[in-house]
Amino acid sequence: VTEAQDRLTVRRLPEKQVDDRAVLDAILDAGRVAHIAVVDEHEQPYVLPVAYARDGDRVLVHGSTGSRLFRTLAAGAWTCLTVTHLDGLIVARSAFESSMRYRSAMVLGTCDAVPGSDKLRSLEVLTEHLLPARWATLRAPLAKEIAATMILSLPLENWSVKVSDGWPDDPPEDLDAPVWAGVLPMATAFGVPMPAPDLRGEPAMPPYLSDWRP
Amino acid sequence: VTEAQDRLTVRRLPEKQVDDRAVLDAILDAGRVAHIAVVDEHEQPYVLPVAYARDGDRVLVHGSTGSRLFRTLAAGAWTCLTVTHLDGLIVARSAFESSMRYRSAMVLGTCDAVPGSDKLRSLEVLTEHLLPARWATLRAPLAKEIAATMILSLPLENWSVKVSDGWPDDPPEDLDAPVWAGVLPMATAFGVPMPAPDLRGEPAMPPYLSDWRP
Repeated sequence: VTEAQDRLTVRRLPEKQVDDRAVLDAILDAGRVAHIAVVDEHEQPYVLPVAYARDGDRVLVHGSTGSRLFRTLAAGAWTCLTVTHLDGLIVARSAFESSMRYRSAMVLGTCDAVPGSDKLRSLEVLTEHLLPARWATLRAPLAKEIAATMILSLPLENWSVKVSDGWPDDPPEDLDAPVWAGVLPMATAFGVPMPAPDLRGEPAMPPYLSDWRP
Repeated sequence: VTEAQDRLTVRRLPEKQVDDRAVLDAILDAGRVAHIAVVDEHEQPYVLPVAYARDGDRVLVHGSTGSRLFRTLAAGAWTCLTVTHLDGLIVARSAFESSMRYRSAMVLGTCDAVPGSDKLRSLEVLTEHLLPARWATLRAPLAKEIAATMILSLPLENWSVKVSDGWPDDPPEDLDAPVWAGVLPMATAFGVPMPAPDLRGEPAMPPYLSDWRP
């Protein structure tokens, strides 16, 4: 057990810990926004929402080369990237036993800046993660656009997954309470795509949107 | 401008910065899971999903008194709590201009542990935030339950809000591209409440669930 692995030992609610790499991948692949930590020189952490995509055994995030916090990450600062899906409220007979259904993945480590030669492919991975099949319909990124984009990669080496997918777990003495108990399911919903006000011509809505199946 | 305020200067995309306290409150009040940072003694940050609630001019989060990371926060470590709502994908003519609609609130500072005398009221605030009108239907928390719960408060003093609610902002030379552009809306959806397998008797589903209006 390395020191880094030891850091990730789940000391609370260890029964929710999942060691299956396939579950990690599924949680990452189902998300669109991650929260990533950066600690500045005053020991002040920041938690930033970022777009991301899994690329095999690493997570890619992208931002502006002008971002101070991104540059801190590119310089090798320790970070943590977390993706959480809230799947429902677990409504128990008491406040104490009430909780949430969720799937959460936490990845610890340090980032590398993706080199210029690999940026184009990484941008494709990021774009395809959000809307599969879209990349091929777009013009190629311009050199200045690629240059203005910083892409960081975080290896999937030191990670932790927690899944809560159960029911209220009330103690026996609460089971006869005249209180409804169960789960209020929650999920991400997608609305009808809205055309941009400045849309010219009548380009067809592409299948990756009109046939959207989340 | 204090040092802490200076830290929060939004250096990227300042046009998305919002200074309205009412917007901060609305973002916090609409969320259910926050991501909070804790930095350990090895400069390793962790980003943890937590239940939370706004209580006037502070945010409350709760966890177990046995949580090492919660104890670190209670001891006064710098932290950051971020709440993000993803409202849609902004689908531009190019990958570079594509982005997201979101509302994000970041609160920086240090936490105080809520003293025992104020814990009960804080638990009520946390419970009512998730399901308003529920608290009065539940038995009172037991002394041992209250003792096992750590509640932290983070003041709403040093915060930053960013809102992206626009449309694709493509450069003029891209506007004639035969590419559909617009917004794919996203939101949190609630399903039909599911009764617990061990539900006894036939307690009515309470109005706070059957009349749920997110």
